[in-house]
Amino acid sequence: MAQRLKMGTILLSRRISIKTASAAVGHKEGEGPLAEYFDRVYKDDLLGQSSWEKAESRLQTEASNIALEKAGMTTENIDVILAGDLLNQCISSTFGLRSLGIPYLGQYGACSTMAQGIAVSALLIESGGVNTAMAVTSSHFCSAERQFRLPIEYGGQRTLTAQWTVTGAGAAIIGEGEGNGRICSVTIGKITDYKIKDANNMGAAMAPAAADTLKRFFDDTGTKPSDYDLILTGDLGYVGSELLIKLLQSEGTDISAVHNDCGKLIFDREKQDVHAGGSGCGCCASVFCSYIQEMLRQGKYNNMLFIATGALMSPTSSQQGESIPSIAHLIHIKKE
Amino acid sequence: MAQRLKMGTILLSRRISIKTASAAVGHKEGEGPLAEYFDRVYKDDLLGQSSWEKAESRLQTEASNIALEKAGMTTENIDVILAGDLLNQCISSTFGLRSLGIPYLGQYGACSTMAQGIAVSALLIESGGVNTAMAVTSSHFCSAERQFRLPIEYGGQRTLTAQWTVTGAGAAIIGEGEGNGRICSVTIGKITDYKIKDANNMGAAMAPAAADTLKRFFDDTGTKPSDYDLILTGDLGYVGSELLIKLLQSEGTDISAVHNDCGKLIFDREKQDVHAGGSGCGCCASVFCSYIQEMLRQGKYNNMLFIATGALMSPTSSQQGESIPSIAHLIHIKKE
Repeated sequence: MAQRLKMGTILLSRRISIKTASAAVGHKEGEGPLAEYFDRVYKDDLLGQSSWEKAESRLQTEASNIALEKAGMTTENIDVILAGDLLNQCISSTFGLRSLGIPYLGQYGACSTMAQGIAVSALLIESGGVNTAMAVTSSHFCSAERQFRLPIEYGGQRTLTAQWTVTGAGAAIIGEGEGNGRICSVTIGKITDYKIKDANNMGAAMAPAAADTLKRFFDDTGTKPSDYDLILTGDLGYVGSELLIKLLQSEGTDISAVHNDCGKLIFDREKQDVHAGGSGCGCCASVFCSYIQEMLRQGKYNNMLFIATGALMSPTSSQQGESIPSIAHLIHIKKE
Repeated sequence: MAQRLKMGTILLSRRISIKTASAAVGHKEGEGPLAEYFDRVYKDDLLGQSSWEKAESRLQTEASNIALEKAGMTTENIDVILAGDLLNQCISSTFGLRSLGIPYLGQYGACSTMAQGIAVSALLIESGGVNTAMAVTSSHFCSAERQFRLPIEYGGQRTLTAQWTVTGAGAAIIGEGEGNGRICSVTIGKITDYKIKDANNMGAAMAPAAADTLKRFFDDTGTKPSDYDLILTGDLGYVGSELLIKLLQSEGTDISAVHNDCGKLIFDREKQDVHAGGSGCGCCASVFCSYIQEMLRQGKYNNMLFIATGALMSPTSSQQGESIPSIAHLIHIKKE
């Protein structure tokens, strides 16, 4: 039976692993430094569909099908799907996954959705009621721009703190027994609000949430950053990563030697003009489900923390003068 | 340990109960037949806030605080909150619950959110990683109208199949041990799509999802409708309820003698001019967390099924010509 520690970290008792994972991305991501690790790169960001939203749905369909194929599984083998995305009413997930006929639990964690999906999957498996689960999420630059900001045709200037929404989807199959990385524990995030109101500086809004969850995890487990070979946040980008490191340093915890961020990894900052890095549910999902999986396989990382962060705002809440509350869910993964 | 049956029903092994629940609603709901059962009725649908969205958030805050108070608990006693709503990016939940400081898992199940939240809560408790959870959701007539349809000031005509979004929130505290209704099993819904495209006829879109989940439950458990003293759907309203009964009858299952629907219960059809009944996350949430809780307490119902249905569309998906996929999650509750 799982065990809940004082600050909320939940230690899993069963051997629950990431069985396999896959990532399907757009052309810009395919021109970045992680290109070789993605399962599929689409040159056409519309994926042959008639709208950006339908294209994003299709990314989820593709990522899920590839994950199933890689695992040698069919939809019959998956007891439940946990999925969500950034679009209003999470339509990428609904329309991307409706044809699978698998029991479905819609998640809303904004860009933290991949970690949330994996964390809840692990707990459902720990309960005994689910044998195998799939966590899926996506984002698309064009669907996000027109929903959260402006139509891309408008050609609005982006500020230097702005992040670039990744066009991509990730799917991870989680089950009992051996796999590529054991999920040892999960720490569910709390809604954290440092009263940041700049919707073009999500990194700053989300860094405090990552700091809070990490502190709770270190307190609970009595471990320190140097016990891990990677502390991977997603998607704080350059601005948020620097803030996270400073926030933790001010409390005596230094993660700088082992920290990296999916929003920094996915694009080449010099060549790809993405300002503060990548973002979107599909950012950490596609990085975690491709490059990180391969690094775990190769043994480059053996003991890591994956902390996906999400900004829980909407254009309406911003227009009504609200700040940007954020959240960060953590998963402790060990190669064993 | 929980046990998963063939069609997906999950039998809980631990004694997990609804500890307490509360409902806070608007003025129209307070003029309906269930008025006396709600914990709080607001005469001012703005709840003193400056926007409908903030008012809806406030409903979640109020419902949660009342539930904690009734349970004699503080936020310290709740290990995790599962919440979601209909607004873009689920902002009612984020802003309504951010001050609580409780680990948070955002859910998106549209109007099925209350059943989804309770079902996942029960499974998290079954895992041992969570002792006590709270499931919260809301909807607001005015925030829903302007987001999904037209601003209310426009005074658009509603069709006779349209349902009236409930202004209300419900909060249920779920934990191990005794309570007001034991959660015996849960059945997670599949995305079901009968290709209905009329966004003013959600009942018809959602009825097939309820039928699918109910059939899977009956198949799994070998039980029949007459084994239960209530099969409560939410929120099919009048049109969807009739369709559900017919759909199941065509396959040899007759639920008509024990069926009722939250969308039918909450308003007086003759006096309140709501056309096809109530709807919205807050409809079945406020009915389940007030009237149904009281009927369980009084022993009117002792063995019931609660199947909350959700329409997983958005204005964007409808504008792009998509149909309305739906979902229904089931909880089997026994008074014991």
